[in-house]
Amino acid sequence: MNTIGKILTLTTFGESHGPEMGGVLDGMPAGVDIDMEQLQQFVDRRRTGQAVGSSSRDEKDRVEVLSGIWQGKTLGTPIGFVVRNADARSADYDDIARCYRPNHADYTWQAKYGIRDPRGGGRASARETVARVVAGGIAMQALNSKGITIQARIEQIGPHFGADEIEQAIQEAAAAGDTLGGVIACVIKGVPAGLGEPLFGKLHAQLAAAMMSIPSVHGFEYGDGFDMASRKGSEVMDEFLKRDDGTIGTATNHSGGIQGGISNGEDITMRIAFKPVSTLMRPMPTIDNEGHAVTLQPRGRHDACVLPRALPIVEAMAALVTLDNYLIKKTNVL
Amino acid sequence: MNTIGKILTLTTFGESHGPEMGGVLDGMPAGVDIDMEQLQQFVDRRRTGQAVGSSSRDEKDRVEVLSGIWQGKTLGTPIGFVVRNADARSADYDDIARCYRPNHADYTWQAKYGIRDPRGGGRASARETVARVVAGGIAMQALNSKGITIQARIEQIGPHFGADEIEQAIQEAAAAGDTLGGVIACVIKGVPAGLGEPLFGKLHAQLAAAMMSIPSVHGFEYGDGFDMASRKGSEVMDEFLKRDDGTIGTATNHSGGIQGGISNGEDITMRIAFKPVSTLMRPMPTIDNEGHAVTLQPRGRHDACVLPRALPIVEAMAALVTLDNYLIKKTNVL
Amino acid sequence: MNTIGKILTLTTFGESHGPEMGGVLDGMPAGVDIDMEQLQQFVDRRRTGQAVGSSSRDEKDRVEVLSGIWQGKTLGTPIGFVVRNADARSADYDDIARCYRPNHADYTWQAKYGIRDPRGGGRASARETVARVVAGGIAMQALNSKGITIQARIEQIGPHFGADEIEQAIQEAAAAGDTLGGVIACVIKGVPAGLGEPLFGKLHAQLAAAMMSIPSVHGFEYGDGFDMASRKGSEVMDEFLKRDDGTIGTATNHSGGIQGGISNGEDITMRIAFKPVSTLMRPMPTIDNEGHAVTLQPRGRHDACVLPRALPIVEAMAALVTLDNYLIKKTNVL
Amino acid sequence: MNTIGKILTLTTFGESHGPEMGGVLDGMPAGVDIDMEQLQQFVDRRRTGQAVGSSSRDEKDRVEVLSGIWQGKTLGTPIGFVVRNADARSADYDDIARCYRPNHADYTWQAKYGIRDPRGGGRASARETVARVVAGGIAMQALNSKGITIQARIEQIGPHFGADEIEQAIQEAAAAGDTLGGVIACVIKGVPAGLGEPLFGKLHAQLAAAMMSIPSVHGFEYGDGFDMASRKGSEVMDEFLKRDDGTIGTATNHSGGIQGGISNGEDITMRIAFKPVSTLMRPMPTIDNEGHAVTLQPRGRHDACVLPRALPIVEAMAALVTLDNYLIKKTNVL
Repeated sequence: MNTIGKILTLTTFGESHGPEMGGVLDGMPAGVDIDMEQLQQFVDRRRTGQAVGSSSRDEKDRVEVLSGIWQGKTLGTPIGFVVRNADARSADYDDIARCYRPNHADYTWQAKYGIRDPRGGGRASARETVARVVAGGIAMQALNSKGITIQARIEQIGPHFGADEIEQAIQEAAAAGDTLGGVIACVIKGVPAGLGEPLFGKLHAQLAAAMMSIPSVHGFEYGDGFDMASRKGSEVMDEFLKRDDGTIGTATNHSGGIQGGISNGEDITMRIAFKPVSTLMRPMPTIDNEGHAVTLQPRGRHDACVLPRALPIVEAMAALVTLDNYLIKKTNVL
Repeated sequence: MNTIGKILTLTTFGESHGPEMGGVLDGMPAGVDIDMEQLQQFVDRRRTGQAVGSSSRDEKDRVEVLSGIWQGKTLGTPIGFVVRNADARSADYDDIARCYRPNHADYTWQAKYGIRDPRGGGRASARETVARVVAGGIAMQALNSKGITIQARIEQIGPHFGADEIEQAIQEAAAAGDTLGGVIACVIKGVPAGLGEPLFGKLHAQLAAAMMSIPSVHGFEYGDGFDMASRKGSEVMDEFLKRDDGTIGTATNHSGGIQGGISNGEDITMRIAFKPVSTLMRPMPTIDNEGHAVTLQPRGRHDACVLPRALPIVEAMAALVTLDNYLIKKTNVL
Repeated sequence: MNTIGKILTLTTFGESHGPEMGGVLDGMPAGVDIDMEQLQQFVDRRRTGQAVGSSSRDEKDRVEVLSGIWQGKTLGTPIGFVVRNADARSADYDDIARCYRPNHADYTWQAKYGIRDPRGGGRASARETVARVVAGGIAMQALNSKGITIQARIEQIGPHFGADEIEQAIQEAAAAGDTLGGVIACVIKGVPAGLGEPLFGKLHAQLAAAMMSIPSVHGFEYGDGFDMASRKGSEVMDEFLKRDDGTIGTATNHSGGIQGGISNGEDITMRIAFKPVSTLMRPMPTIDNEGHAVTLQPRGRHDACVLPRALPIVEAMAALVTLDNYLIKKTNVL
Repeated sequence: MNTIGKILTLTTFGESHGPEMGGVLDGMPAGVDIDMEQLQQFVDRRRTGQAVGSSSRDEKDRVEVLSGIWQGKTLGTPIGFVVRNADARSADYDDIARCYRPNHADYTWQAKYGIRDPRGGGRASARETVARVVAGGIAMQALNSKGITIQARIEQIGPHFGADEIEQAIQEAAAAGDTLGGVIACVIKGVPAGLGEPLFGKLHAQLAAAMMSIPSVHGFEYGDGFDMASRKGSEVMDEFLKRDDGTIGTATNHSGGIQGGISNGEDITMRIAFKPVSTLMRPMPTIDNEGHAVTLQPRGRHDACVLPRALPIVEAMAALVTLDNYLIKKTNVL
């Protein structure tokens, strides 16, 4: 279950404090130009974030492609890649080997497997997202070559919507050893009508699964989403119209570019809700693996808010889903 | 892509006005007692809804199991089943063969396949959900035998939260030829800790995909969901505690029973947003397949609000996902 | 695991003495013309065989398509279909509910599931192949429209290779209550170069899995197959040549039309070995489910040799694999 | 399609002359002891072969596990691993960038993808099998801990069956710049009854697909295989018997330990046919990518017979299939 996709599949591996994170992107069409520098820049966005509040770690995260790309072009073969874990300080995490941090996955992984790598959260670390971004960055270049673009932006952090307000809120939270959640909006432009595979592979269902697999995500909606629930049918009709160029479109886009699970050619819009980071920089009461009460002291370095760094992750997951469906679409006719 | 699940898989088929809807539920464990009467009652809930505002059609929907259950027990073989489409009146839909109804899938299916069955929406009809409910009802009985229960309830219809208010709002909408959306809350009780398959098979990601595949669903959240986005980390901590019986639990359940994508033994909670029904009982302006403006006259019989009938559908999808993960969990150790 | 294929998937269901056998063929491209009469004729070949030695049962096997084909064309939606089991005489099989027939699946299914439907072998009956033939017959029509044809023929029955010799051998075996195995050769013509998905989806690996899933099959080879093992490299080289029409081909075809797991444009050739039917028309010593020695008396009606009826089954499985790979091929480039 | 397996999945990547070959083994149960030295020894068998005739290259092939194993135990997380390609001499292969070697995959990969990495055959090199052996070696240790063992042996090389004869034949072929095919027999011991997933996941169908995916394999049979075709039913009956310890077995094993696609507790036996190596150490006439006749001069170093080195590959594939089915079996009951 570390694989996502149908024709274009991404399989990832790696623990936070192991030697490397990596993945295999299989099913990439052959002959696609890949600009490695552009790919690295895309991955770097995850490392630094684009706003205040990101961790001070310098993870470097240099992408090493091991296969599947040769002389700047995809071969059609699986693209194996790794990113080294340069900065592991396992000592930081010694105590959590015996404790269950609240709102983390320590307890559930132990319950599931009877064993876990406690160093840095092991597999259950946001560190794993680097492999998603590498793969998504490759998919993105293929999409771009077809005129499809994807852009995520921070819409809300905590209860705040404006840039200045947001910056101040993150600084205050960080100073208090607290953390903030938020909402990222993402739009996919240039998708032709006809992508998505009902019943169970509806385009928005695939997008939901992809986004909900990102650490900390607690909600997904597309188009008018939860707001649709409060509305009347007559208020959210996207009336069809014929454009001057002869193509068919809709006058409004409450549907978020997807109708019946299939893209209709309009912008695909979605919103993704992130919970606040679970690691507070303050003492946290919890229990150890024998059920005794303990207090965890803050250690390591953690973001007060993950959203700036999550932007390329959201874009990467959207790219993987979109390209996969772009390829599947080719098989809908003989 | 008409299949969902990994070990327990449901594949469905059927067009709205074809002879039968049906499905194949494969991977059901052997030796599970199935009470056919109880199954029929579960399916009947979808037919009638449990509240005002449901369609007056009497679809009957008698479940015919063709294989996989013998002498009241599952055989481990695929469970094939059908439900006849007794009440098709294709004449009702003649004009939509040439028109694209707004917010429906007419246009997108045409764009995808270059062909579509316009009778009753063809495959893109809520009629398909009957197969989900049959399969989910079977899975539910297996779960119940293990102490796992699932319950969905209407939380909101339009902007209304109270039963009386809701009833009145649906009647007013129906009288006006309009429709209403809403929110269904669903809770899964009795799930042991350890279910869910990170990274990409996180339990909530699977639930999201399953729920988002239901017609009209536009949003999904678990635990505190979108509300998490506005909160501080310190406000949503689910502190661990050791219960008197020695088990480990949490004092609160902001996480919705899932941490790191794996169940933690608490109630699994989620909310699903439905858009208003797209077929209004009033003339609707749209275009035909040549781009000419036309006005669709209201025909057939349609619900003013689907939520009452959607309750067993939500429960069915939750049951399929839960049982699948219950089975996968068995493979986590040798 | 009752599903085969990647883009074009077949899921089947049904026990030998249940009401119906059936299946769902999903992923069929839209807009393909399907001639139902031709399909029925293809299915009828399985029922009657094309030579002496077939069972005298008249199973009828009328194909009922429930979805996915409308007005003679595929819709792109899943094609659900059933074939009724008209002639079940469960009384014939009463004793085997307590006994394990040698070389049958009675014991292994019991060991696997702890329960089994003993009537007619339940799911482990050659009766299940009818669903394969229906689905394969549909796929075949799609292939034929692209100039791809598939033909299976009996090459050997018992140690005999000539038609007269074969007919006589089957009659003698039947008279003695014995049975015969044999070899079916199959050739796929008109396949363009480039089909097959290394590493694990090599075209011949997919064909092997498909053929080995047919009841009674014990061996598979392609091209020169096992004979290759005895040869020198210099003896089996398929030298490339440029044909007059500019296309590239090979002077010989030891490789059986597949090189490196991918079709090369030459005829795809394979041979499939069938064991003799395991039900003899003579008393057979075995044990019951308590381990006591018992003697099974011959009952029912069984073929002395399945190969004549297996020809369309082999062709059907070849068609499913070929069309699936034909579709996947479309995704190899952007 | 570079993934094999259902619960236990192996995804591999790597081109022959790229920096590394590697793979991801996902779905390994947690808590299994892995002896890294024993794993390396298993992989070394592939490097050196166990008999004369192997290539003189010293590939080293040191296994680097990147994730999923910690402190000697599996974590349940994906096991990422790589093996460096130390000895690439791409210059050896310059001319084949423009030529299609007979019986190789040069032409078919070009036809499929429109691009290929010609260095050392790229992805279509036997070098890829190293990833199979690493993964299979890990699976093997899990199986061994459950009393299941797997052993492959050379049964035939060219037309020769005896060790001395074989050794001499290989030396003669090598001296003549020629190559030899052969047959490997493999037996799996200790498999409990009940493994395998009919219809399409029959144990022997899965084994066939796995073995046929190994480079150079042209045939697969289990039990008496192709010899079954020449026999009467009365000659190949495996009569059941109750052993002194109360278990049920069969007096003979024509069925090869699998009946109805499910293991019956007897030894699982199979035979795999390899074609002769396609690279001869003599000038070979062929065509270039413009269809002109050319003569390829022998270069590089190649085995005259791959069977000695293929033994652990066969065992590895058998181990992957067996462990996958061992895990799936757990889901057959609730």
